[in-house]
Amino acid sequence: MSGLTIWTYDWVPDGPRGFVRDLRLRWACEEAGLGYTVRTVAFKDRETNHLEQQPFGQIPFLGDGDLEIFESGAGLLHLARKSDKLMPRDPAGEADVLQWTIAALNSIEMVSVPWWFLKISGDKDNALAGWMGKRLDQLEKVLGEREWLAAGRFTVADLLMADVLRVPDVRAFGNRPASEAYVTRVTDRPAFKKARADQIDHFAAADRRRPA
Amino acid sequence: MSGLTIWTYDWVPDGPRGFVRDLRLRWACEEAGLGYTVRTVAFKDRETNHLEQQPFGQIPFLGDGDLEIFESGAGLLHLARKSDKLMPRDPAGEADVLQWTIAALNSIEMVSVPWWFLKISGDKDNALAGWMGKRLDQLEKVLGEREWLAAGRFTVADLLMADVLRVPDVRAFGNRPASEAYVTRVTDRPAFKKARADQIDHFAAADRRRPA
Repeated sequence: MSGLTIWTYDWVPDGPRGFVRDLRLRWACEEAGLGYTVRTVAFKDRETNHLEQQPFGQIPFLGDGDLEIFESGAGLLHLARKSDKLMPRDPAGEADVLQWTIAALNSIEMVSVPWWFLKISGDKDNALAGWMGKRLDQLEKVLGEREWLAAGRFTVADLLMADVLRVPDVRAFGNRPASEAYVTRVTDRPAFKKARADQIDHFAAADRRRPA
Repeated sequence: MSGLTIWTYDWVPDGPRGFVRDLRLRWACEEAGLGYTVRTVAFKDRETNHLEQQPFGQIPFLGDGDLEIFESGAGLLHLARKSDKLMPRDPAGEADVLQWTIAALNSIEMVSVPWWFLKISGDKDNALAGWMGKRLDQLEKVLGEREWLAAGRFTVADLLMADVLRVPDVRAFGNRPASEAYVTRVTDRPAFKKARADQIDHFAAADRRRPA
């Protein structure tokens, strides 16, 4: 086998369309000009039907020839090493991208996803809100001082951080103009728009194939 | 400048000693036989006194010559590329270590830390408990089938996952014999024991320097 394969679900309900995490890998490939094929696992029985490929029953995972890599963050770092459009090749630039990529996963998303989970479970003013506000304020300070997180230009760290921040409930949590401008700037990129439209089309096509 | 520097606090209260995350970087260096110096920022005013080095006011961060890298996960991946004791050099092994390292940060710790935060905030049976149990059960299944997470041997992915799982409240959450045996096996390594003892000594020495 050769080439890149992005694995996602065959179908999802309307709600998450445009936010399913295969979008992160599509977006990175579009930025880097890397060709890819999209393949699917069934949404039905998703928690157990592809544990051999993803031990937590999630998507996406990335195929690269004989390699298969789960965790969107890992897929992004793997892709980043294929193209300097996603990550510079010098050690300082690479370290900067690495730290901000991990910060998106482990300092921001580690708070925002559980906060959001509690919120949609009905606990709107949940006990993670204080922590959430503090982390977003710290990030707002950084984004007030620079256009891109790492290496002085767009990198995969911005792709991931913007994807974490663009979740509507997260975006609406407080008023942080620098962060808002950042999300607008990053998601205004043609590669994001194409990846998002392609994901929405993918699931819409699945609707059309479904028996009425 | 040359050589590795691990930055931590000058002092912490008794509670977190043995669990402060500079331990992850110490442990990795000990496994790899990499020399390092420990330097400190003040625990007092820690949320604002080193924002130039760590935008979320946390530790650890890693110095490597002229580079400085925050986020313990990023520091671990940076160190892993210096030694095949932490990560194999072949693409398949490297991808496997990368995915499990990110899984520790973004699939397990993303649940366990917020769950623990709610628990110590007084909400023992909090709304994240179901998600937490599910993720730990999924991991238990994996650990029931293999000794190490990635590449068929100890890697930095085990170092990180075991550090996430060894938190006493996490370890006591349900009965998962394969996970328990895994944590015991990984933390039985001499490099972990040395890193933990060194951290405890570091903070104990700070007690002795404090005015009575």
